[in-house]
Amino acid sequence: MDSTPSNSTVSRTAILLLRVLTFVFLLIALILIAINKLTDEDTDTKVKFSDIYVYRYMISTIVIGFAYNLLQMALSVFAVVSGNRVLAGEVGLLFDFFGDKIISYFLLSGCAAGFGFTVELRRADSSINSFTGKANASASFLLFGFLSTAIASIFTSFALPKKAN
Amino acid sequence: MDSTPSNSTVSRTAILLLRVLTFVFLLIALILIAINKLTDEDTDTKVKFSDIYVYRYMISTIVIGFAYNLLQMALSVFAVVSGNRVLAGEVGLLFDFFGDKIISYFLLSGCAAGFGFTVELRRADSSINSFTGKANASASFLLFGFLSTAIASIFTSFALPKKAN
Repeated sequence: MDSTPSNSTVSRTAILLLRVLTFVFLLIALILIAINKLTDEDTDTKVKFSDIYVYRYMISTIVIGFAYNLLQMALSVFAVVSGNRVLAGEVGLLFDFFGDKIISYFLLSGCAAGFGFTVELRRADSSINSFTGKANASASFLLFGFLSTAIASIFTSFALPKKAN
Repeated sequence: MDSTPSNSTVSRTAILLLRVLTFVFLLIALILIAINKLTDEDTDTKVKFSDIYVYRYMISTIVIGFAYNLLQMALSVFAVVSGNRVLAGEVGLLFDFFGDKIISYFLLSGCAAGFGFTVELRRADSSINSFTGKANASASFLLFGFLSTAIASIFTSFALPKKAN
C-alpha cells in the first residue's frame, strides 16, 4: 500500500529543497520591503513600508511564511539527526498538507496585494520609481516564495493518506 | 483500496454544492464590480472599474473562476444524466485537483489585490466611500468564492490517487 522508499525519499528531498528556496526568497523579500523608504522632497515627509497598510500586510505574510518554513526545516533536520519524525505517520502528513496549503494562500495574498497596490501607485506617481521598484522587487521574491510553497504543496497533497483510512 | 461508494458520493455532492456556491458568489462579485462607477464632481470625470488595473485583474480572475465552475458543473450534470464521467478515473481526479488548486490561487490573488488597493484608496480619499464600499463588497464575495473553492480543493486533494500508482 505504501509508496516505495526511494520514491518517498526523492519527494522528501525535493520538498526540503523547496522549503530552503522559499526561505531564501522570503528573506530577500523581507529585506527589500523593510529597507524601502521614500522622501517627499516638496514636503520633506518620509514614507516607510509601515505607513502603507498593504505593505504591512505583505510583511506579515512574509513573516508567517518564514516562521512556518523555519519550523518545517527544523523538523526535517531533527528527523535526519535523530532518525525519528516528531510528527510521524498520518498526523505529519496532514500537518504538511494543511501547512503548505494555508501558507501558500497567505504568501499569494500578500504578493497580490503588494503587486496590485504598487502597480496603481506607479501609475499615479511615476516620480517615485525607486520606491515602487523596490516594492515590486520584494513582491516578485514573495511570488517566487509562493511558487516554491505551491509546488511543495502539490507533493504533500499527493502524499496524503487515502480518504478511506 | 477504493473508498466506499457512500463516502465518495457524499464528497461528490459536497463538492458540487461548493461549486454552485462559488458560482453564485462570483456572479454577485462580478455584478458589484462591473456596475461600480465614480463621478468626480470637481472635474466631472467618470471613473469605472476598467480605469483601474487592479479591478480589471479582479474581474479577470472572477471570469476565469466563473468559466471553470461552469465547466465543472456541466461535467457533473452530464455525469448524472448519462451515468458516465467525461474525465473518468485518474485523469478526472487530477483535473479536479489541479483545477481547484490553480483556480483557488487565481481567485485569492484577485481578491487580495482588490482588497489591498481599496483599503489604501479609502484611506487616501474618504469622500468616495460609495465607490470603495462597492469594491470592498465585490472583493468580499470574491473571498467567499475563494473559500468555497479552497474547501473543494481539500476534498479533491484527499481524492487523489496514491503517489505509488
